[in-house]
Amino acid sequence: MVLTGVNSKALRKGSAEPPLAAGAFRVYNMRFCPWALRAMLYVAAKGIDAEVINLNVTDKAEWYFKKHYLGKAPAVEHNGKVVIESGFIPEYLDDAFPESRILPTDPFEKVQQKLLADRLTAVAHAVPNLFAVMRDHSLKDEKQPKVFEVLKMAEDLLVDEFYAGSTPGYPDYLSFPFFEKIWWATALNVVDLPKESFPGKEEYPKLTKWFDAMIKSDVVQSVTQPLEHGAAFMNAYATHQPMDYDLGLDD
Amino acid sequence: MVLTGVNSKALRKGSAEPPLAAGAFRVYNMRFCPWALRAMLYVAAKGIDAEVINLNVTDKAEWYFKKHYLGKAPAVEHNGKVVIESGFIPEYLDDAFPESRILPTDPFEKVQQKLLADRLTAVAHAVPNLFAVMRDHSLKDEKQPKVFEVLKMAEDLLVDEFYAGSTPGYPDYLSFPFFEKIWWATALNVVDLPKESFPGKEEYPKLTKWFDAMIKSDVVQSVTQPLEHGAAFMNAYATHQPMDYDLGLDD
Repeated sequence: MVLTGVNSKALRKGSAEPPLAAGAFRVYNMRFCPWALRAMLYVAAKGIDAEVINLNVTDKAEWYFKKHYLGKAPAVEHNGKVVIESGFIPEYLDDAFPESRILPTDPFEKVQQKLLADRLTAVAHAVPNLFAVMRDHSLKDEKQPKVFEVLKMAEDLLVDEFYAGSTPGYPDYLSFPFFEKIWWATALNVVDLPKESFPGKEEYPKLTKWFDAMIKSDVVQSVTQPLEHGAAFMNAYATHQPMDYDLGLDD
Repeated sequence: MVLTGVNSKALRKGSAEPPLAAGAFRVYNMRFCPWALRAMLYVAAKGIDAEVINLNVTDKAEWYFKKHYLGKAPAVEHNGKVVIESGFIPEYLDDAFPESRILPTDPFEKVQQKLLADRLTAVAHAVPNLFAVMRDHSLKDEKQPKVFEVLKMAEDLLVDEFYAGSTPGYPDYLSFPFFEKIWWATALNVVDLPKESFPGKEEYPKLTKWFDAMIKSDVVQSVTQPLEHGAAFMNAYATHQPMDYDLGLDD
């Protein structure tokens, strides 16, 4: 796997469109965006040689609107064609690169994994509860039970070592970024969950083992950001402060 | 295409589970539900021999919870396995019955049709505006512009005769049920759109031609309900009155 530019600086308004070599594969990413991370994880897991272009999605580069009509991350570009939306890119990648297929080929097994990933979007929908606490810490007692509730649901849905079975797969890669956002939030004292052995061996034993296996995996390590930077970025996002898209990068 | 039981009576609490012949294909449907209609249209378009079981989704049959953990329609049952969710059933059917594939095989063309269907879910999300007017007609001026706005978006997204191209396809079958619900609403005087030549040749010329072609098609005609019954059922649903799941059926 050759992923270049994972920690390149974010391109913004006024930047020039980087030339793309014929046949090259590119991911348009935002380093702290969980939706973009879905695409990054899937590309990394498939071992696709890819160039990563990081985007400033506040002051958006003008040329990027030719790639994505809303100017959002993620998108992938391949043979002059752009595919958008984190819910659609992974299956597209399996169709376009069948030799590294992650979804099962059996139609029933495949749709079960897609349905499981869909149920796990409840984790994504729980994250704004933490944003609310970042803006107003007095809301913690009201908001964090909603996060615990989806973690409990996720614990119950995890019947094997990974959601996809004995190895990580489609539902693992599509849901991991949102569990990671909750983990980042533990560094901000907005949710009473442990930073180590997250989300907690007592309440969520299967999920804790799963998160540990995922976070330590080569795939996740190849594309993710450190806890402290993630927490700082997320806090800035939630509290409507200016976001440093190049947080943690050298000048 | 042999679709049996499209207008069978709805099974409810206390009913017995109808025995399913080995290898038989079944659709669990609710005759007035637009989400269920997505599955019905796709099954009809693919020409799958299917038995339709209509459900009362208010007083739910106990045995049905073994098929769908939430007891909702639609679901399809095939070879002893059940697949749920209207957003996932169509692609599953293309995978399981590839000989009657509706989605394109080219990965890029396929994902474009899925993305287009996803954008057209805005039509589904506009329908509750009409439910609100059914409950309180004084909201008409406030709510109906939101419906016009999505119809305008849908008009702009229709660049060919059908969303899928020169013939109806995935985005057409997944979105049609929600356009039909807006059409049903024209019979209730909750939206100022014409019942004939819906949604209107002046404002939405492409969409009007599309809706006419869709509603007159054998596929739609084989599974849909008449305007008057649809309107009456939808009004009962929106205004929280008892719903007659067997509306229009002989005793």
